[in-house]
Amino acid sequence: MSIQCPTPHEEDAVVLLGHGAGGRLTAELLDHLVLPAFGGSAGPLEDAALLPGYRELVVSTDSFVVSPIFFPGGDIGSLAVHGTVNDLAMRGAWPHALSVSLIVEEGLPLADLRCVLTSLGKAAQDVGVPVITGDTKVVGRGAADRLFINTTGIGQRHGRLHPSAALARPGDAVLLSGPIGLHGTTVLSTREGLGFEGDIASDSRPLHRLVRALAPLGESVHVLRDPTRGGLAAALNEIARDSSVAVEIEEGVVPVPEAVASACDLLGLDPLVVANEGCMVAFVAPSAAEEALVHLRSLPEGAQAVRIGEVVEHNPRGRVTLRTLVGARRIVDMPLGEQLPRIC
Amino acid sequence: MSIQCPTPHEEDAVVLLGHGAGGRLTAELLDHLVLPAFGGSAGPLEDAALLPGYRELVVSTDSFVVSPIFFPGGDIGSLAVHGTVNDLAMRGAWPHALSVSLIVEEGLPLADLRCVLTSLGKAAQDVGVPVITGDTKVVGRGAADRLFINTTGIGQRHGRLHPSAALARPGDAVLLSGPIGLHGTTVLSTREGLGFEGDIASDSRPLHRLVRALAPLGESVHVLRDPTRGGLAAALNEIARDSSVAVEIEEGVVPVPEAVASACDLLGLDPLVVANEGCMVAFVAPSAAEEALVHLRSLPEGAQAVRIGEVVEHNPRGRVTLRTLVGARRIVDMPLGEQLPRIC
Repeated sequence: MSIQCPTPHEEDAVVLLGHGAGGRLTAELLDHLVLPAFGGSAGPLEDAALLPGYRELVVSTDSFVVSPIFFPGGDIGSLAVHGTVNDLAMRGAWPHALSVSLIVEEGLPLADLRCVLTSLGKAAQDVGVPVITGDTKVVGRGAADRLFINTTGIGQRHGRLHPSAALARPGDAVLLSGPIGLHGTTVLSTREGLGFEGDIASDSRPLHRLVRALAPLGESVHVLRDPTRGGLAAALNEIARDSSVAVEIEEGVVPVPEAVASACDLLGLDPLVVANEGCMVAFVAPSAAEEALVHLRSLPEGAQAVRIGEVVEHNPRGRVTLRTLVGARRIVDMPLGEQLPRIC
Repeated sequence: MSIQCPTPHEEDAVVLLGHGAGGRLTAELLDHLVLPAFGGSAGPLEDAALLPGYRELVVSTDSFVVSPIFFPGGDIGSLAVHGTVNDLAMRGAWPHALSVSLIVEEGLPLADLRCVLTSLGKAAQDVGVPVITGDTKVVGRGAADRLFINTTGIGQRHGRLHPSAALARPGDAVLLSGPIGLHGTTVLSTREGLGFEGDIASDSRPLHRLVRALAPLGESVHVLRDPTRGGLAAALNEIARDSSVAVEIEEGVVPVPEAVASACDLLGLDPLVVANEGCMVAFVAPSAAEEALVHLRSLPEGAQAVRIGEVVEHNPRGRVTLRTLVGARRIVDMPLGEQLPRIC
């Protein structure tokens, strides 16, 4: 489906779940509809934007629609803090202030709302970021699904850290701070009652301290990205596209927890496209790779950090390749849509 | 219904439409549930918050859930810009940057989405504020009602303007920049097909230029507030409460367009509690009142500015009184909930 315009097709075209999934459909929607409407360019889309006129300030916004609103390892409240804090962190920024805006369905038990807000408040306190303003809207029964939360964050950049999705360079080491697939499979399993939710929990957690740990490496840190919607596959493809480089990763070293692998097998999912909320990829200059791993591993949230690949010269630009366990290479495509709606 | 906690009642208590309507139920929800969760105080709730560490920057967030998404005089896109720009303006700030976050229901025609986003982009351009970052989420059919938009704005304060809902003083003149009741009655009439929508249109418009026009008056401008949810009644009651003063307004001079009066008569509504999106109240020192009116009237959006009342000494603090056409006085209560859900 194309959403280029004006086309005769558009009259019948509607928004699909996949348009919000962080894959190719999302990119099409952004390129052909959202950005032109705002007069934006089709440049690299970062997790957070620089605030014009304030070199050190970055801004990020996210609406959270995860279903169910409670899941092992977190809830929509803590997720709304972690998600936005992490988007700021991926621009090398420390969280400075947060706004919180609620859309509540009439009939939501006040006890549930209190539980979510208490969790949100605790997550913000753990991060050390103040909630400075907010808004609450209520819509009638059936006009929303329980509770949606928007968080917008303002962050202050660490002096020497200026990562961008456009700065990957040939030779860069690709680091991953922890295991993948936990958030998406946990939420899906909880929602569908698949029975894995006893064995796994979302990795939802703030990553700003990991980023601060990398600050001494300064400009050797080229790219930071947390692989949320669309998973590691989408994150690496975005970086490869925006930096116009080829990325190769090694299947054998990408940490996939056993329960995640089982759930993905059952569901026919590739763990590489499953959303995460508590790990990040870092592209760093090869000379800094070992030191970066040491810094990452110095914190609990980075204890399992590994080098999963590198930026290579010989592949077509914009392509992501996986060296499989048997030594073959396969292309890691940008996911089209998402098999997992409302994961965040 | 009380939402104080912990109470045995809470187990059965649920969120009501009125909790999002800007009246007493909203205040209860904020005081007893939202603010404690965030460790906030119960101080004056302003339209926008100061950004810690940056004296000149203010932040405001709003989620827009208006139904229908298109109405005479605007749509959810232009409203999302004006609403947030106006919240910044009420803190004496010029809009500096905007974030936009969409929650879209699967099945929304792309043509409608394009129309809303184009309108949003145009409204932002007219105001002169860049959209610097965004987010798009899609939820399944029935999990949202077409389209919700969150806008978060960052504004820069005019040097000498520091209005606050807590700064009203006895003697202050209460000014109103234009007629009331247009937005709420237009949206309601359009939604319910009442037939007034041919005669009226929403007043949705940006107010930042009006505020700039007042900037030369500096600290003589004590309070600025746009009477959105809960209308003029809620805005004046909030100011009376936060400033601990009594406010008296004159029924005969509050401008109520004929079509608004007719619609309110039919619906049994008081125009004082109907939402507006294009006028503001200003509390100014009595010596500056005439000059303020001249400044307001110098712009099209303030052409009908009038003095509607003053802060008086003799009434109980926190009370808002209306001098009626026949010379009687009646108390203008804080609306309990809202007769008009999903008005913004």
